Amino acid sequence: MTDPVRDTLERLLARINAISAPGPGFTRPSYSPLESAAHGVVAEAAGRLGLDVGRDAALNLFARLKGRDRDAPALHVGSHLDTVPAGGAFDGAAGVAAAMALAALFVESGEPPPVDLVVTATRAEESVWFPVSYAGARAGLGRLRPDELAAPRADSGRSLADHLREEGGDPEAVLAGSGLPPATFLEFHIEQGPVLAAAGEAFALVTGVRGGLRYRAARIDGVWAHSGGAPRHLRADAVFALADLVTALDRHWGRVLDEGGDLAVTVGRVDAASPDHAFAKVPGRLDFCLDLRSDDAALLDAFDGVLRREIGAIEAARGVRVILGPASRSEPAPLSPALIDGLIRAAGGMPPRRMLSGGGHDAAAFAAAGWQAGMVFLRNWNGSHTPDEAMDLDDLAEAVRLVHAAFRDGQIAAPRARPI
Amino acid sequence: MTDPVRDTLERLLARINAISAPGPGFTRPSYSPLESAAHGVVAEAAGRLGLDVGRDAALNLFARLKGRDRDAPALHVGSHLDTVPAGGAFDGAAGVAAAMALAALFVESGEPPPVDLVVTATRAEESVWFPVSYAGARAGLGRLRPDELAAPRADSGRSLADHLREEGGDPEAVLAGSGLPPATFLEFHIEQGPVLAAAGEAFALVTGVRGGLRYRAARIDGVWAHSGGAPRHLRADAVFALADLVTALDRHWGRVLDEGGDLAVTVGRVDAASPDHAFAKVPGRLDFCLDLRSDDAALLDAFDGVLRREIGAIEAARGVRVILGPASRSEPAPLSPALIDGLIRAAGGMPPRRMLSGGGHDAAAFAAAGWQAGMVFLRNWNGSHTPDEAMDLDDLAEAVRLVHAAFRDGQIAAPRARPI
Repeated sequence: MTDPVRDTLERLLARINAISAPGPGFTRPSYSPLESAAHGVVAEAAGRLGLDVGRDAALNLFARLKGRDRDAPALHVGSHLDTVPAGGAFDGAAGVAAAMALAALFVESGEPPPVDLVVTATRAEESVWFPVSYAGARAGLGRLRPDELAAPRADSGRSLADHLREEGGDPEAVLAGSGLPPATFLEFHIEQGPVLAAAGEAFALVTGVRGGLRYRAARIDGVWAHSGGAPRHLRADAVFALADLVTALDRHWGRVLDEGGDLAVTVGRVDAASPDHAFAKVPGRLDFCLDLRSDDAALLDAFDGVLRREIGAIEAARGVRVILGPASRSEPAPLSPALIDGLIRAAGGMPPRRMLSGGGHDAAAFAAAGWQAGMVFLRNWNGSHTPDEAMDLDDLAEAVRLVHAAFRDGQIAAPRARPI
Repeated sequence: MTDPVRDTLERLLARINAISAPGPGFTRPSYSPLESAAHGVVAEAAGRLGLDVGRDAALNLFARLKGRDRDAPALHVGSHLDTVPAGGAFDGAAGVAAAMALAALFVESGEPPPVDLVVTATRAEESVWFPVSYAGARAGLGRLRPDELAAPRADSGRSLADHLREEGGDPEAVLAGSGLPPATFLEFHIEQGPVLAAAGEAFALVTGVRGGLRYRAARIDGVWAHSGGAPRHLRADAVFALADLVTALDRHWGRVLDEGGDLAVTVGRVDAASPDHAFAKVPGRLDFCLDLRSDDAALLDAFDGVLRREIGAIEAARGVRVILGPASRSEPAPLSPALIDGLIRAAGGMPPRRMLSGGGHDAAAFAAAGWQAGMVFLRNWNGSHTPDEAMDLDDLAEAVRLVHAAFRDGQIAAPRARPI
């Protein structure tokens, strides 16, 4: 006897990932023919399963399995099918495959879901292509701005509107549309971190998507000098100043975590390797990025203050100047506690871990639009956004079965009680 | 009435620096036609002054002013005429001009020096062109190895022997020659550091040239991760590891100086800016250089031990691997205390400061070959190896007059007492 969940996951992921620009890894740009072809695979499979397949003006795909109560808000389950360049097999695609597996489980059981189940494949989630967050989902929610439709794609230089039109979408209708009314959105997604793999746990429930404060073009100006000729007390060394800053931020980061706060501090890029830099020169300049993430907007503000105080002290001590440059900011997006509670009730016994998402996801766009939004994180290996991305489909199947049980038993997305 | 010292300095520097590849700054590659042309300018000026001009097989220039005692070892005074790419007007050239000004002062005074004064313009001092230390001086001293003559020039890829032959030299004779017998070598050179300018002192006497221990291709291997997804305790962050290392080395450096040791620690190049690095990724790799300098070989060894202990601790704490890669080493070269004492006696009153040279200089090659070698450092501004290099020719003129008086009065390079 076949297992509809494992079968759907395996077959659909194989078919989706057969569609890619040349390797390594998997490359399906946002609003590209490759992304459209992956959507076509899902539409075809959904049609064969008996779902009603539709698309909106932004080409998000909705495949509907009718529920018992057709008037109640639907449960949307899904994720995206685009990838970063040379990305992995699971970031996005696993979530769409899981939604299809959930639908297949209902179809196989012969028992319709309590309300409509809508397999949802969004467009253009990876902001590496267009400098726009959650472009497809926000278009579907009526929240995309005209300037965002004009944003150029990194590889082609052509606008989001151009690429959308080319794939058969309608940018004017996107701007005119009011978007989907609030319902429930649930997204399965790989964790993109080592927490679950390290803990030996198959999946977790996400309590919120962290916000971020980013300085993408910060720098330190010191004074160039001969490495043999400049005595310690007369140096203004940009590398030593960065070391002071990073160790200070690391110390404060540890303190914040000790006090129970949520924070991640990353200096992802350090450039003191220009043609002017040499082993025998005290570096007079260094460029760097700083990425701060937290579930607490006030904590981000407070840490920004700490950062600026430390910079003041380092400038005074080292004779350098630290220029942070423009900041970009995203606000934390709390996900639905009710959804988490429903899934935990259904899980019984040892409940899944609750955790934050450090990366951004479509679920944050649905939450921001007033939806009841939730995420299930799946354990994965080898990080993400790389060809080495790995996960265990048994973990995903287990999570799909939990959501099936919770949904079937009215723990999530149940019809509202109506006045008699 | 004209001043032969100022006149010689100004005219000669203007003529030498009129010879350069296109700017910014001054570019005369080692063993290039431009370096040869600058040597030609000095040869011509020396000839007009009545000096005997000769060259050795390595094309070092020797312009001899006869002394009273022609049998005693000569006083060689000079420096080099090549530059780094886009270098300054004074690194090297000022020392040759000063030697010519000293000769002009003797000629003008009508009083011959006690022993022969040999204006010496070496070749190929800047090791940015050939990966060889003090190539010209060591060739003249009979200490250049065959493998060094085969070393390629950075810009042309052709060998030192090729370029030497092309300028009229004789590589085979260089290898066959036994080199100049030990005498006295004195070099005027800009300090290449901020010490004298900060102290308001015109010049200083150099007690030795620091040795160095260099790791030019060190790196840190960490683990790439998503900046939002990787919790602090599970990260192996190459940038945070470097920050730990630099702050630890800085602390030990301060302690060494407090204990009276001589040390300079420079991390001149840090590269965590490859296409794999991004603001939202925990950096899994960082490349860096480390340059340690001291006048004390044992201290360099001890500090290398400290470095390796700190690396062990950081590897354990951060889960990274630090690979230092190949080391290159140069030994400290003490310069002649007798020469310094002679100049200090001649100076009278407030004696010039004694200081170490952090950078390498031809004087170190002469000292290593058993010569009595010394250096006079001149205050300069805006660092060196840049077009902005600046100095005050009055400082240089004052130093030349001091050396003239010391030499004339038998405080330096006097004839030896002979058995009657």
